[in-house]
Amino acid sequence: MQSYFIYLECTQCGARFDSGRLQTVCPGCNAPLAARYDLPSARRELDREQIGAARRGMWRWFGLLPVSDPEKIVNLGEGDTPTLPLPRLAARLGLHELWVKDESFNPTATFKARGLSAAVSRACELGVQRVIIPTAGNAGGAMAAYAARAGVPACVVMPADTPRANIEECRAYGAEVVLVDGLINAAAQLAAQRAREEGWFDLSTFKEPYRLEGKKVMGYEIAQAFGWRLPDVILYPTGGGTGLVGIWKAFSELEALGWLEDRRLPRMVAVQAEGCAPVVRAFEAGAEATAFWENARTSASGLRVPGPFAGRLILRTLRESGGAALAVSEEAIRAAQVQLAGLEGLFVAPEGAATLAGLVELQRRGLLRPDERVLLLNTGTGLKYLE
Amino acid sequence: MQSYFIYLECTQCGARFDSGRLQTVCPGCNAPLAARYDLPSARRELDREQIGAARRGMWRWFGLLPVSDPEKIVNLGEGDTPTLPLPRLAARLGLHELWVKDESFNPTATFKARGLSAAVSRACELGVQRVIIPTAGNAGGAMAAYAARAGVPACVVMPADTPRANIEECRAYGAEVVLVDGLINAAAQLAAQRAREEGWFDLSTFKEPYRLEGKKVMGYEIAQAFGWRLPDVILYPTGGGTGLVGIWKAFSELEALGWLEDRRLPRMVAVQAEGCAPVVRAFEAGAEATAFWENARTSASGLRVPGPFAGRLILRTLRESGGAALAVSEEAIRAAQVQLAGLEGLFVAPEGAATLAGLVELQRRGLLRPDERVLLLNTGTGLKYLE
Repeated sequence: MQSYFIYLECTQCGARFDSGRLQTVCPGCNAPLAARYDLPSARRELDREQIGAARRGMWRWFGLLPVSDPEKIVNLGEGDTPTLPLPRLAARLGLHELWVKDESFNPTATFKARGLSAAVSRACELGVQRVIIPTAGNAGGAMAAYAARAGVPACVVMPADTPRANIEECRAYGAEVVLVDGLINAAAQLAAQRAREEGWFDLSTFKEPYRLEGKKVMGYEIAQAFGWRLPDVILYPTGGGTGLVGIWKAFSELEALGWLEDRRLPRMVAVQAEGCAPVVRAFEAGAEATAFWENARTSASGLRVPGPFAGRLILRTLRESGGAALAVSEEAIRAAQVQLAGLEGLFVAPEGAATLAGLVELQRRGLLRPDERVLLLNTGTGLKYLE
Repeated sequence: MQSYFIYLECTQCGARFDSGRLQTVCPGCNAPLAARYDLPSARRELDREQIGAARRGMWRWFGLLPVSDPEKIVNLGEGDTPTLPLPRLAARLGLHELWVKDESFNPTATFKARGLSAAVSRACELGVQRVIIPTAGNAGGAMAAYAARAGVPACVVMPADTPRANIEECRAYGAEVVLVDGLINAAAQLAAQRAREEGWFDLSTFKEPYRLEGKKVMGYEIAQAFGWRLPDVILYPTGGGTGLVGIWKAFSELEALGWLEDRRLPRMVAVQAEGCAPVVRAFEAGAEATAFWENARTSASGLRVPGPFAGRLILRTLRESGGAALAVSEEAIRAAQVQLAGLEGLFVAPEGAATLAGLVELQRRGLLRPDERVLLLNTGTGLKYLE
């Protein structure tokens, strides 16, 4: 096995950075870095069907991931989550085809496992000895699990009112848990300070380049699940935005690899909660960057991200794809959660339920044709939100 | 796709029953029925590698499962759970190879999904309109999810002190939840009564033949994961015993299919809690059946089964395989849970943790050589036990 990873590139100014050393963000732009691969060689040498027949899991895409030595993979069984039809909901909504990719089938029961598997693997391969993360909830548990698996100490900084299950699972994995008054931005400040002062490596969203690489594999799996023809619309619950940006990155890599049977790309739709919708506000204002959202409130704790670091990338993705950004109410989230469980047997996280609420809003605005193929992304299990 | 399922057979007297009609238990023996397949034809016509390359999930084994029409499958993404090495624990225990099959990667986050996917699919294919189940915990959530997916009403009867998460998820799926004073045996009595009086179909463990079929697929997946050479020892947390008996059934089917590279079969080891160990007591006494365990108590709620209906089958499996039955303390279960999370990054259910405690006990008794390949079976997520 060989990875085609060659260098890192600033997503703002395009400057290149050495992929063989620990990197964080572009020092000039304070913008995220993205991994670039030798896709022309990969196109000649990799075979999508061979990857499809390889061993279960996210790391079957090793050639398109940033770890050099397969022995360094920190693996807990992440990836290869099911893509399920939602026939009853589709009929109710008058849609031809409605699907959900259910990311609760991951270690720690959320999509965060993907990013942290990639980031912890690569950080440890490059010599990192201890890892810290600020989190709105699920990323903390995932990092704690992968750190335990890798045998390195972990520290998780999170709002004191994060769902109890998130706090408890971090402790179960043996991580140090620091609770802060405030939201993920306050946690991020504290984590950055401790990283500087105590030598932890900071795995904050987009402050290192590899969580994005783990998350992008959702995009490969979506393409594979639909026979290399992408859905027309993907609804994604957007907090920090790694998954949204990652899936879009995967699609452009698949185009470069020549693996798509049909080059039409989906419209990417970001769904946020009315109580914390910085991306929606910026999208509607035609702004290039998000502004900080004061007094963020929502039961979908993963959407409680008032100032996403990669706001520009999120907005760029939505616009490039011809997509949209929608805010939904708490009532709509709850109603959607009840519908998904009662009609389709899926007990999803409120963040995942928000995408169904967003779909209803998309229809109400006339932004969806009934014959379009729609994919919801459920980011995790509802079990972590029982309080 | 075609199923090779041909008839049902009493596991006690061998009488045959029509597989095309709804069946429960053998009316003569009051013993479980087991599905039998035309394995000689399957051997000629099925290809294990082709199944391995088929679409993700339990139903890739359709030919060896009891549903006639693929359209009738009630699917939530069950099966294809990861088999993960536990290198740190192996080193600590002085073992050459230690693995876990992690069944938390299933709908409703436990292995119960497999059995209920098969049972609800077949029941609905045969015309059942409403389903009821008594449960010690996780089977209830799984049945409620598959019933919702199938669009049939569900009723779950469980002890009032079942973990809160089990109760809440059943309600989320829209099931009627009935709480009883007492344990699963009391729940079973009430469920049977309501089934008789109100026309529910009772999906109690081993009181219908198809949960066993779903669970057996764990055995196929184990064989596949290890290149069709089975582990030397499998430790299984034993409550009702469907998984233990099912895995053993799968191995005998694989033998008949000629798919095993090495015909040595594992020793099956049942692990129970000290506070509820009817199988251990019967095994040690050389008895053929289990006797009711009074005052059953354990934090591993899935092991709180004082009188498993298929006690004879469980004991027969353990003896045929040259295995054992071990009871472990609550302290040992808790310590094992902490070890699995802290050393390997797996936050397992207490039932799963019990298998690691059982492994330590197996070693202490001198029943394990260090060069043997050992597989633990984790039946579900630790997230349902946070209270």
